[in-house]
Amino acid sequence: MSTPRTPVPAVEPLPRGLVTLADHEAHARTHLDANAWAYFSGGAADEITLRANCAAWDNLQLLPRVLRPLSGAHTQVQLLGRTLAHPMLVAPMAWQTLAHADGELAMAHAAAAQAAGLVLSTQASLPLDAVAQAFGAYPERGPLWFQLYMQAGRSFTRDLALRAQDAGYEALVLTVDAPVSGSRDRERRAGFVLPQGIASVNLAGAPAPTSPLDAAATWADVEWLCSLTRLPVILKGVLHPDDAREAARMGVAALVVSNHGGRVLDTTIATARALPAISDAVGPGLPLLVDGGIRRGTDVFKALAMGASAVLVGRPCLWGLANAGAVGVAHVLRLLRDEFEMALLLCGCREPAAISRDMVIANAMDSHL
Amino acid sequence: MSTPRTPVPAVEPLPRGLVTLADHEAHARTHLDANAWAYFSGGAADEITLRANCAAWDNLQLLPRVLRPLSGAHTQVQLLGRTLAHPMLVAPMAWQTLAHADGELAMAHAAAAQAAGLVLSTQASLPLDAVAQAFGAYPERGPLWFQLYMQAGRSFTRDLALRAQDAGYEALVLTVDAPVSGSRDRERRAGFVLPQGIASVNLAGAPAPTSPLDAAATWADVEWLCSLTRLPVILKGVLHPDDAREAARMGVAALVVSNHGGRVLDTTIATARALPAISDAVGPGLPLLVDGGIRRGTDVFKALAMGASAVLVGRPCLWGLANAGAVGVAHVLRLLRDEFEMALLLCGCREPAAISRDMVIANAMDSHL
Amino acid sequence: MSTPRTPVPAVEPLPRGLVTLADHEAHARTHLDANAWAYFSGGAADEITLRANCAAWDNLQLLPRVLRPLSGAHTQVQLLGRTLAHPMLVAPMAWQTLAHADGELAMAHAAAAQAAGLVLSTQASLPLDAVAQAFGAYPERGPLWFQLYMQAGRSFTRDLALRAQDAGYEALVLTVDAPVSGSRDRERRAGFVLPQGIASVNLAGAPAPTSPLDAAATWADVEWLCSLTRLPVILKGVLHPDDAREAARMGVAALVVSNHGGRVLDTTIATARALPAISDAVGPGLPLLVDGGIRRGTDVFKALAMGASAVLVGRPCLWGLANAGAVGVAHVLRLLRDEFEMALLLCGCREPAAISRDMVIANAMDSHL
Amino acid sequence: MSTPRTPVPAVEPLPRGLVTLADHEAHARTHLDANAWAYFSGGAADEITLRANCAAWDNLQLLPRVLRPLSGAHTQVQLLGRTLAHPMLVAPMAWQTLAHADGELAMAHAAAAQAAGLVLSTQASLPLDAVAQAFGAYPERGPLWFQLYMQAGRSFTRDLALRAQDAGYEALVLTVDAPVSGSRDRERRAGFVLPQGIASVNLAGAPAPTSPLDAAATWADVEWLCSLTRLPVILKGVLHPDDAREAARMGVAALVVSNHGGRVLDTTIATARALPAISDAVGPGLPLLVDGGIRRGTDVFKALAMGASAVLVGRPCLWGLANAGAVGVAHVLRLLRDEFEMALLLCGCREPAAISRDMVIANAMDSHL
Repeated sequence: MSTPRTPVPAVEPLPRGLVTLADHEAHARTHLDANAWAYFSGGAADEITLRANCAAWDNLQLLPRVLRPLSGAHTQVQLLGRTLAHPMLVAPMAWQTLAHADGELAMAHAAAAQAAGLVLSTQASLPLDAVAQAFGAYPERGPLWFQLYMQAGRSFTRDLALRAQDAGYEALVLTVDAPVSGSRDRERRAGFVLPQGIASVNLAGAPAPTSPLDAAATWADVEWLCSLTRLPVILKGVLHPDDAREAARMGVAALVVSNHGGRVLDTTIATARALPAISDAVGPGLPLLVDGGIRRGTDVFKALAMGASAVLVGRPCLWGLANAGAVGVAHVLRLLRDEFEMALLLCGCREPAAISRDMVIANAMDSHL
Repeated sequence: MSTPRTPVPAVEPLPRGLVTLADHEAHARTHLDANAWAYFSGGAADEITLRANCAAWDNLQLLPRVLRPLSGAHTQVQLLGRTLAHPMLVAPMAWQTLAHADGELAMAHAAAAQAAGLVLSTQASLPLDAVAQAFGAYPERGPLWFQLYMQAGRSFTRDLALRAQDAGYEALVLTVDAPVSGSRDRERRAGFVLPQGIASVNLAGAPAPTSPLDAAATWADVEWLCSLTRLPVILKGVLHPDDAREAARMGVAALVVSNHGGRVLDTTIATARALPAISDAVGPGLPLLVDGGIRRGTDVFKALAMGASAVLVGRPCLWGLANAGAVGVAHVLRLLRDEFEMALLLCGCREPAAISRDMVIANAMDSHL
Repeated sequence: MSTPRTPVPAVEPLPRGLVTLADHEAHARTHLDANAWAYFSGGAADEITLRANCAAWDNLQLLPRVLRPLSGAHTQVQLLGRTLAHPMLVAPMAWQTLAHADGELAMAHAAAAQAAGLVLSTQASLPLDAVAQAFGAYPERGPLWFQLYMQAGRSFTRDLALRAQDAGYEALVLTVDAPVSGSRDRERRAGFVLPQGIASVNLAGAPAPTSPLDAAATWADVEWLCSLTRLPVILKGVLHPDDAREAARMGVAALVVSNHGGRVLDTTIATARALPAISDAVGPGLPLLVDGGIRRGTDVFKALAMGASAVLVGRPCLWGLANAGAVGVAHVLRLLRDEFEMALLLCGCREPAAISRDMVIANAMDSHL
Repeated sequence: MSTPRTPVPAVEPLPRGLVTLADHEAHARTHLDANAWAYFSGGAADEITLRANCAAWDNLQLLPRVLRPLSGAHTQVQLLGRTLAHPMLVAPMAWQTLAHADGELAMAHAAAAQAAGLVLSTQASLPLDAVAQAFGAYPERGPLWFQLYMQAGRSFTRDLALRAQDAGYEALVLTVDAPVSGSRDRERRAGFVLPQGIASVNLAGAPAPTSPLDAAATWADVEWLCSLTRLPVILKGVLHPDDAREAARMGVAALVVSNHGGRVLDTTIATARALPAISDAVGPGLPLLVDGGIRRGTDVFKALAMGASAVLVGRPCLWGLANAGAVGVAHVLRLLRDEFEMALLLCGCREPAAISRDMVIANAMDSHL
């Protein structure tokens, strides 16, 4: 891998003893201040979906194949016409400077260095072009996408989309599962406030909404967005098979099966449970991604077995960022990739394309005994 | 909303930090004396149904729709020929002055001010006409119903029903699930006694039963009651589909799917589980309400998705009453209504009528991990 | 009820605060010495079946009927040509003087006074004729049966059966689920020893077995036993539908669906789960009883709904015995009978014969949340 | 049993109070040093499969038969043309001198003395011929097998197989479920290191692998191994029915349904759950063994009911070894055999061949209440 041409964040030492993503979580819980922890770790209401997202992956059981030739094994997948080194992208998450001063820049460097993709949030706390420049400097980097919320003013939305396109983002990810804010009771109890100096810098100048529903996107907006840009448009937050079918009819480029990490509407179906029905509904023609509760390489394997082309990883990357900046994020992504490769080989698959659905079955019993 | 013409209970400060109904419960547990807490919080026997009522809603998962037009969204529902601002009524509960000196009057003011309906208990500790007057003064108020137990003397029952009718109650809700008292072991262990000065004032002069079964209602009583009054008669406490069919044949106005908040017979089916079969049995012709374990706006959403027209909310209103009188009740109802509206929008529904059954599925896994 | 003509055990005060069978258990746990507690409370191996027996009843949900006429309600059932005041018998349990000095005599008085049946254990610590005399003195008493293990010497077994017949026992209950002893790890860890002065007095003079399997009964023994006595022969410990069918073919009088209270073979199916399949296998022609985990009146109701004619109650009677001798047993039986009557009425049944299978459904969710 | 001709390890006293395998585990946990405990007790990643292996056996319920003739009962089974005294073999486990100085020799003496089979690990810490000599000296001993990992150099593998054959091993057990190492997070957190003086002595001189996948076996290697030796070849680690069918086609001698004790890939299906599908896939022609979570005689019974001819027992033997050397291992095997015999009799089976699949059913409810 060649040396990137943009400034790399200072290298921090990795705390000792972190051998899993759960270790990163435990460390971040004590490392982040309570305000930031409440924001990043919390989910909607009673956090049933937050927990169910993780449990749903755990409750899928693997049926490995044995004795198949494994030499030349690799983790490459195809996505939107590109070959990715592995099927992991960093999920869009707001205000990353709340977790670490280097924020989205550290995230970008680490993701790119680990050959992961990056989806930058509309609510990023650093400028979208700086992030794109940092990320783009790594030849082995994965895809670079920009996450979009419809804004109260459609003209501002258009300008934002075109700015992202010009800055080098390769797809627009329209989040469709949060037309209004969810009930973030943990944040409300903790009295979360965004500290001074942290803001959604890329939304500077956006018109204020006249009603809470002002910015809620519709299918008509999706059509408008598709017509507006040459970039592929991806919908994030689809859970109902009928919506997936509609999206396929409309010709969007891909879907992200997501419940917003359990942060918007509690008791929403776990993504691991929603994925198979979506996959059945749209068939192999429309690429699917999935996020929510991915904590182990086996979770990535299961996602692919049930029809996903790739996964988005959110909170674990933030834990890494909080724990050791870019080094921490890189460590998280490396752990997950190593675990995924191990799962692949131990299930008898030379490559992700060899994963088949019969290798995963639902667990009749609760595995959390 | 215009100013009501009856005296409004003194405004109390709301305790700080209450952002959910569960917060109200936790506060009321420490705020009420042990005697009253045992009475209000307890269920029958081992309280399996009490817990199952809540768990059953939690275990239903949502499959939201996305990108549907939401402007002009509202929470109005149709019920018995009226348009209600939202589908929530206060459930009938005995002796509310045990929770707060303002008792049923505070409850009535708060419910009316929040545009909720009110079902007054036969065992109310304040006069039914005073409650009706307080409630009726709010133009935006929801429906006002009177809950009835058959009394040992049928002539007393008739007089009571007619008094309610004359006072302005708009329906009679006959409770049919408690022909005898249940096994309230928690109350017995706590040695619950009704404090001096609290009584079922509207039952003054009722004849004493000659046997425990004296007051148990039958289908013949239902017919008699229907013939007695011009008010619609609603049956509360139906769980078996065959009884629901019989009620439909007899022409009652509506049913409340209820297990009496888990207070009468333990291990009775959770209402969230009974509702779909009842709905299938009677079809859309007979309006259904449901109570038991409603603690979140998503629970209201799920009830409507499975066939209910509205829900009754019991203990949470009592917690609010105990915590801050009318202000507390209003807060509880406001929280729940806001959450319901949020669930509606986040599931892609512009109005309750847009909710469909496919948006809710049973959870194969225990969500209480 | 007339005064019995045999000496009644001294009346003891009932400890305060016992309002359920579980309260009796909690009290007995502190009241009995550790040796006796280990013996009475323990089950085989990891006690999975011991717990599952109770949980299986809890996990059945009731679907009550409403508005049915209840006047003249009663708890009477038909069993082997007799009308019983209610469907409860005391299960056979060894060495009851280990729990209380009055042992089986106190048990007999209390059961008879409560109109319950009694099944005396072969391993009783008091003489079978004294027990029969005590029990028989109550005109309202339920059935009196004698539980039999095949003994190493068949002639001793014959003599024992005939002694029981002569003493007034009305049926022989052959236990078939313990051809060898089970793995009672709790007893072994506690170092259980039968205290001096307690013995199986009715087995005095029985020949010692020459091998552990010497006493194991076979179908041929059942035939032999049926031919030996004019008493009805009942098999206790049947769980497999094929065995139930074979028993029906052989013409036994009744079956007890039982796993020996979880004391013999761990992970054996819970009786509440085995019962419906047995009932389906033999149809209405062969009376079924069931034991194991009956702790609530609703459990009795569920047993009858799934095909049982009556239930055996074991450990709870021992807790009552330990807590207050005959008074304690009577209290336990009274509590259970009252709860059963309450369940009957609250499910809309005027009598046990009105209970139907559709009133009970399996719980899809764990009710132990 | 005749006196063996090889040196028997010194006899140690058995710690008091060990009446079950779980007691052995609890004692070993305090007896072994933390390093060795982490190695022996740990599983892959979050240890979900490690726990699920045990839970899956517990969740199978027994439906015993009664009144069947039991005299002459025995525990003998047929396996690969031999009659075994009982269906238990010691599973292959690496570096047993880490648990006790007598290591594999104590294990061999104890297993042979208890008429169990022995599968020696490729990674044994004592010479394979010494172990074979010790084991072979007992006339009643069970089968002696050698577990094989493919080695980086195929010629070394061939030599190793032939050395085992010459030393008296009667079958080769090729482990196929670990082409690469698993994620042993517990070991990594504990910083496990193999103490000085402990090594895989039988692999001395093995060529170092040039890549991690160098040693991964394929179906071609299985064919090669079968052609290489006159010994039967057994595959260990098969979970997918399609692989079982392939193995049957290739003519291997037997399969071990195994997930490597939950040590390689977490969330892999529990073996008790995988077994029935494998059994259905291959029919009665191909002998099956199973390991993982066998802790009770009832577990052995269930394994046979679902199609296994015998079981492998791993960690429990190590606990016994750690607790009291050969005496401890013998005690563990004796306990398990006694429990198995008890389960056999209590299910109405005179011999293992009488066990039928209808005697075991899956538990619809969680038995861990």
